[in-house]
Amino acid sequence: MTTTQPRESQHVSADDYVAILSFYARQMHLLDDLELEAYAATFTEDGVVDHAHRGQRVAGRAAMLAYMHAALPAYKRVVVRHWFDHLLIEPTADGWQVSYYSLVTRTDADGAVTFEPTFSVRDNLVRLDSGEIYTSLRVLHQDRPSSVVQD
Amino acid sequence: MTTTQPRESQHVSADDYVAILSFYARQMHLLDDLELEAYAATFTEDGVVDHAHRGQRVAGRAAMLAYMHAALPAYKRVVVRHWFDHLLIEPTADGWQVSYYSLVTRTDADGAVTFEPTFSVRDNLVRLDSGEIYTSLRVLHQDRPSSVVQD
Amino acid sequence: MTTTQPRESQHVSADDYVAILSFYARQMHLLDDLELEAYAATFTEDGVVDHAHRGQRVAGRAAMLAYMHAALPAYKRVVVRHWFDHLLIEPTADGWQVSYYSLVTRTDADGAVTFEPTFSVRDNLVRLDSGEIYTSLRVLHQDRPSSVVQD
Repeated sequence: MTTTQPRESQHVSADDYVAILSFYARQMHLLDDLELEAYAATFTEDGVVDHAHRGQRVAGRAAMLAYMHAALPAYKRVVVRHWFDHLLIEPTADGWQVSYYSLVTRTDADGAVTFEPTFSVRDNLVRLDSGEIYTSLRVLHQDRPSSVVQD
Repeated sequence: MTTTQPRESQHVSADDYVAILSFYARQMHLLDDLELEAYAATFTEDGVVDHAHRGQRVAGRAAMLAYMHAALPAYKRVVVRHWFDHLLIEPTADGWQVSYYSLVTRTDADGAVTFEPTFSVRDNLVRLDSGEIYTSLRVLHQDRPSSVVQD
Repeated sequence: MTTTQPRESQHVSADDYVAILSFYARQMHLLDDLELEAYAATFTEDGVVDHAHRGQRVAGRAAMLAYMHAALPAYKRVVVRHWFDHLLIEPTADGWQVSYYSLVTRTDADGAVTFEPTFSVRDNLVRLDSGEIYTSLRVLHQDRPSSVVQD
């Protein structure tokens, strides 16, 4: 049997894994509850959100907030929820790089649920000496049919 | 950088986090497999399920069972699955308070999937000295567009 | 209060739980990114995938690969993502048996999302002395309305 597979248990400790899940839970509750200032504060001051699929890069908390406030009218008639799965976590010098799936539901006042496209997200997370976690970079790719499947 | 963020790693140990996830996995398998007596037994005897979004409060295992048996005909033609995400876990005197997202799928005999509205759920969990976990209170809020987004 | 409930915290350590989640994250990223050889390598050489709902059993990595390559044309126009939840993990002699929910999204080039039927999956996972995890058996059941709910 091949021995080239990574040993999952070396990648991240259970404590760190749970800290990362808890960070994302808090960050997504803030975003989806439209607590935009508190959400922006989960990024580093110079944090970047890169919507790679549409060539749009927002740098810094202030720009992030301006961008989100401009987008708010789209959320008047729906409640948005971000769903994550399958976190791949790699330690870095000051935190972790995390790649995961993201699905976004929109629930309207009648309870009808619609879906945004699925996304593949890659985050750089930094952890301060105090233990606090922040996102310094988020790159989002809308999932598109793969070029490896040829006609 | 602000230091007002909570330190996620202080909130809940990895062992407790996994015990809570395992509890929910068992509880939801029982519910979705319609093992209603076993599901009711995952609540304390005086456990409460509060459907806050429709002003309906069911108190005690017996009432819970009567309520679920009355609802069973709705589940003749679909398989229901509850999906959770983004658990926010806060220790309490005798267990934890847990807030999370919930999505409910309904799969019919032909495999077609439909969705119930998304929910925000807040549970009180109690842990006995033996380590067993029970739900003492579950409050469900159907997600509705937020009043903070004004015209 | 009844004391017949299992003690969740005895079932699986936090380290093992995280190792299993990380294994599934890697395995599903490989599958959904159509890295089929690498995906097949996450099974033991004699690994079996049993689509119990349609009476189809594929045994061994080579047969698995042939099967997946034959199915590839169906994935030319969509990106598939497998979403897991509610893992029930039981230790075995050489690893774990894991039962979980599975939801499959298909995202097309326009971003429209459709859903395959939900599934209940039961895996046998083996862990080598080196710590590496492999799937030796995967049994998939399409969720169908239960016979316990009578007219």
